[in-house]
Amino acid sequence: MIKERLSRLREKMAEKGVGLYMVTSSDFHNSEYVGDYFKERAFITGFTGSAGTAVITPEEAFLWTDGRYFIQAAAQLEGTSVQLMKMGQEGVPTVEEFIFSRMESGMTLGFDGRTVPAATGLRYREKLEAKGAKVDASLDLVGEIWEDRPALPAEPVFLLEEKYAGQSRADKIANLRAAMAQAGAGYFALTVLDDIAWLLNIRGGDVAYNPVVLSYLLVRPHGIDLYANADAFPEAAVQALKDDGVVLRPYGEFYDDIASLPDGSRLLADRERVSFALYSCLPAGVALIDKENPTYLPKAIKNPTEVENEKAAHIKDGVAVTRFIYWLKHTLGKEPITEMSAARKLEEFRQMGEGYLGQSFAPIVSYGPHAAMCHYSPSDESDVPIEQSGFALADTGGQYYEGTTDITRTFAAGPLTYEQKHHYTLVLRSHLNLMGARFLHGCTGTALDYAARGPLWDEALDYNHGTGHGVGYLLNVHEGPNSFRYRIVPGNNAVLEEGMITSNEPGLYLEGKYGIRIENMIVCRKDVKNEYGQFMAFDNLTFVPYEPEAVLPEEMTAKERALYNAYMEEVYEKISPYLPEEEAAWLREETKAI
Amino acid sequence: MIKERLSRLREKMAEKGVGLYMVTSSDFHNSEYVGDYFKERAFITGFTGSAGTAVITPEEAFLWTDGRYFIQAAAQLEGTSVQLMKMGQEGVPTVEEFIFSRMESGMTLGFDGRTVPAATGLRYREKLEAKGAKVDASLDLVGEIWEDRPALPAEPVFLLEEKYAGQSRADKIANLRAAMAQAGAGYFALTVLDDIAWLLNIRGGDVAYNPVVLSYLLVRPHGIDLYANADAFPEAAVQALKDDGVVLRPYGEFYDDIASLPDGSRLLADRERVSFALYSCLPAGVALIDKENPTYLPKAIKNPTEVENEKAAHIKDGVAVTRFIYWLKHTLGKEPITEMSAARKLEEFRQMGEGYLGQSFAPIVSYGPHAAMCHYSPSDESDVPIEQSGFALADTGGQYYEGTTDITRTFAAGPLTYEQKHHYTLVLRSHLNLMGARFLHGCTGTALDYAARGPLWDEALDYNHGTGHGVGYLLNVHEGPNSFRYRIVPGNNAVLEEGMITSNEPGLYLEGKYGIRIENMIVCRKDVKNEYGQFMAFDNLTFVPYEPEAVLPEEMTAKERALYNAYMEEVYEKISPYLPEEEAAWLREETKAI
Repeated sequence: MIKERLSRLREKMAEKGVGLYMVTSSDFHNSEYVGDYFKERAFITGFTGSAGTAVITPEEAFLWTDGRYFIQAAAQLEGTSVQLMKMGQEGVPTVEEFIFSRMESGMTLGFDGRTVPAATGLRYREKLEAKGAKVDASLDLVGEIWEDRPALPAEPVFLLEEKYAGQSRADKIANLRAAMAQAGAGYFALTVLDDIAWLLNIRGGDVAYNPVVLSYLLVRPHGIDLYANADAFPEAAVQALKDDGVVLRPYGEFYDDIASLPDGSRLLADRERVSFALYSCLPAGVALIDKENPTYLPKAIKNPTEVENEKAAHIKDGVAVTRFIYWLKHTLGKEPITEMSAARKLEEFRQMGEGYLGQSFAPIVSYGPHAAMCHYSPSDESDVPIEQSGFALADTGGQYYEGTTDITRTFAAGPLTYEQKHHYTLVLRSHLNLMGARFLHGCTGTALDYAARGPLWDEALDYNHGTGHGVGYLLNVHEGPNSFRYRIVPGNNAVLEEGMITSNEPGLYLEGKYGIRIENMIVCRKDVKNEYGQFMAFDNLTFVPYEPEAVLPEEMTAKERALYNAYMEEVYEKISPYLPEEEAAWLREETKAI
Repeated sequence: MIKERLSRLREKMAEKGVGLYMVTSSDFHNSEYVGDYFKERAFITGFTGSAGTAVITPEEAFLWTDGRYFIQAAAQLEGTSVQLMKMGQEGVPTVEEFIFSRMESGMTLGFDGRTVPAATGLRYREKLEAKGAKVDASLDLVGEIWEDRPALPAEPVFLLEEKYAGQSRADKIANLRAAMAQAGAGYFALTVLDDIAWLLNIRGGDVAYNPVVLSYLLVRPHGIDLYANADAFPEAAVQALKDDGVVLRPYGEFYDDIASLPDGSRLLADRERVSFALYSCLPAGVALIDKENPTYLPKAIKNPTEVENEKAAHIKDGVAVTRFIYWLKHTLGKEPITEMSAARKLEEFRQMGEGYLGQSFAPIVSYGPHAAMCHYSPSDESDVPIEQSGFALADTGGQYYEGTTDITRTFAAGPLTYEQKHHYTLVLRSHLNLMGARFLHGCTGTALDYAARGPLWDEALDYNHGTGHGVGYLLNVHEGPNSFRYRIVPGNNAVLEEGMITSNEPGLYLEGKYGIRIENMIVCRKDVKNEYGQFMAFDNLTFVPYEPEAVLPEEMTAKERALYNAYMEEVYEKISPYLPEEEAAWLREETKAI
């Protein structure tokens, strides 16, 4: 079947004079997850993993994917003629290196420019033109041969009331227009779905786990066009948007409208966020202003209403996760529990919370060696029973009208070895030191990452992921520009401002043995101001007990023990009022001071 | 006198049609210190401080300087008609804001483009052209009226032998040419004096404390031109340079040669480092490649010979400073000692060291409240006796054939209060935690700054300066691109590499009371490599005892005490062999474990 698809694609390539054709895994908005409509790479190669890029030549086909998917990809590609390119392995070129090595003068590289960021497309074009080759980004050749292609998502849209959003659509638009004026821009093209949802106080369900609306936005000097499927909008939403000058237009007409912007227009379009298609179709008379979206930072700085709502959401979420821990500890050994069944049980506890709308990402419940795989998420194929020994890990989150949650706890499923306790205590110390950091305004997450990594680095240990990521408000669980990471990543190192919400999730992973991760969401706030400047600190949003059975108090500093005790006491105070009596009594024991 | 100079300058301004004239404090190479030839700003305003910018209009004159100099500037400007602009004070515009507010359409801003970095000049030009005004950077109007202007410095040049430099000139040039080829550059303009001295393995004395040679360098596709005063070069140096393709040309001809580069040339010139004059005089047919100087990073990564030499230099330097501490502690109360006399005594101890060439910066010896002023350096006017109570501070450094040193110690001149000990212990903890940091390769100094600031920030205290700066090898004591600072400063946040040498100097300053700073130089090295990656760590270069009388061991963590004890033991082992018997016995006591 794949071979036949490839041969039809090659016919199209020949028709268009395309020597190499690239198929990415992206939708038109650079979303973290993509709907079935956008799964062209899976359609053309048979490989269904979330990450991968295909390159097709007249005789061969190649698929690049990363270490998470080597086994799955090898199985799915068997018999398809598509060759697996294992990313990061010695001697394996990157997609870009491969393309540059294969392209010769006079050849054309084809791809769908809507699925490639402008910055990337511009780099390809510049490099290929330097060797006499060219780029055609106006093609969707896979789309042309995909007969039973799924429809675009069109989940119902709802308005987010101001008691949840904390700021009116009109206010947000006024601030945006002020930022555009400062940048000298009359037009602004916004194609990032969570920024659009945030700006317009609308939510939907067009991307898995992300309550966003498939759409483009074009702010004009007078009026705003929202390109989306009108059928998904209730009449009240259409009217509310119209009252603020936002008019619905068909989703498919965005690029046509960009292509017919009047001469002399000045368009703000962030080349790291908009697609290469947008840059490609701009009329020559339009001046581009390449700046970070002026919606990006305000979205990340939660307003006081959002922060208060998040606190409320986290109490409901904390009750659900705490009840889950109680249930797990009191049920293990009595009835069979697997990773999958535990995840379902946790979801049941969450569903008891008022205003719960669903999961904020695919739940990770993992036992033993599975937890040592950072990106593991249980499936019917991988599911294993949770036994009464060692660690189990649950990294899950929910969407509420009052915000988005993301929490990880690592539990003792049974007796622990000294090594396990020592490692848990190390990760806990990392987590507590970041939580308790006081710092001067002006710090980015890079300047604070050492607070978390220090205890692990002292023992030549590490976790191969960031210490924390920004989290949206009833939006994407991964959000910029705030983060905790030791490497400086341009565009993802914002100065920490009051109201920014970030996860605090150090871990430790021992391949084939076990994994540990402890994660709270923390919100940045102002602390003391004195002659040295404005100090900042973090408040916890997440309240769920740590695992006292895994803690070695004698390996902690006095400061770390004080932070632990204060947090556990706060968990008891905030969560116990919502628990049945016997669970509250258990929590009292669980949270006692060390 | 100043009024008369101003009126002659205004005549020249009128002749040239200049509405506003700016005079900076820089030489033509953006050096940290400038020779008398370059002190145009002092000549035209009467203010002699190291930092300041003057702007002259047909009717008025203004001088901007910072808080260090408000008192001095007010006194020196009295009666000159020059108005003091106190930088950073509420309501005081910056130089740039002031210029933009005064410049109107049709007006010309004049300045000497050789004294302004290209990046700054380009910004001025763009902003002024947008309002119909223009820039003339080809002027040196102060020079035209300065009749008895001092000569350009021309200190003797010497060759740095390979046993000191660790790498031959030919090797360095070959690496540079490879970097130029990679950047697609046929020409490279280097105007930074320490980079030139490093590349050519030459040293001189044309900038105070910085053993550099006043020069420009132009690397051509074949051959290299060094624009400098030939009289300063011994015959052997001229010949050695010539052997490696470097030909001496007159200093004054650099810009003429830039202006006559052949059409089609591709010139690498770092716009943050070269002057606006260079960018202004480039022929239209020359393509500019704006990239960081390819000499900047290699100069900072000391080779193994340089590191070994630095270790040797620091033993000599450590002996001198340790003997100074012994002398101070055993002489106070017996004979009068002032800040200045103590600084002279320390210099005497340094002069006993073989291969000592002089100070690496103006010595800071400060007592009591003087030490609370970070930038204080004693002078005949400010000098005070060191009494037998509280803290004295000495921040000094030397130049040796084997490298550059920079060390700060804070001593108990007499009894200390609990508060003083508590603060000293805090600063010591900061210093020890950074010294003992282990980290993964990929960290910049920004990712490690928290190791030092954490203990102070916990108590809402801070020091208003970087935690550390790179240090040259028998070159400038302040060198990039490595540093420790919590803010991300573009161009000064290099990933820490094996061989980079940085200072580790946290402090604490209580206005009107006392100041504390503890500084070692540390060299980055590879540590364990394992499945998590390449770990890195620091070795101390500096070996001089801390102040045991000021240490409160009970306020330190076990890790901090272990670091203290190991360091003090190493001080004893390395330094005591070079001390007279009674001083060695004293050092044994001074360095005992806590």
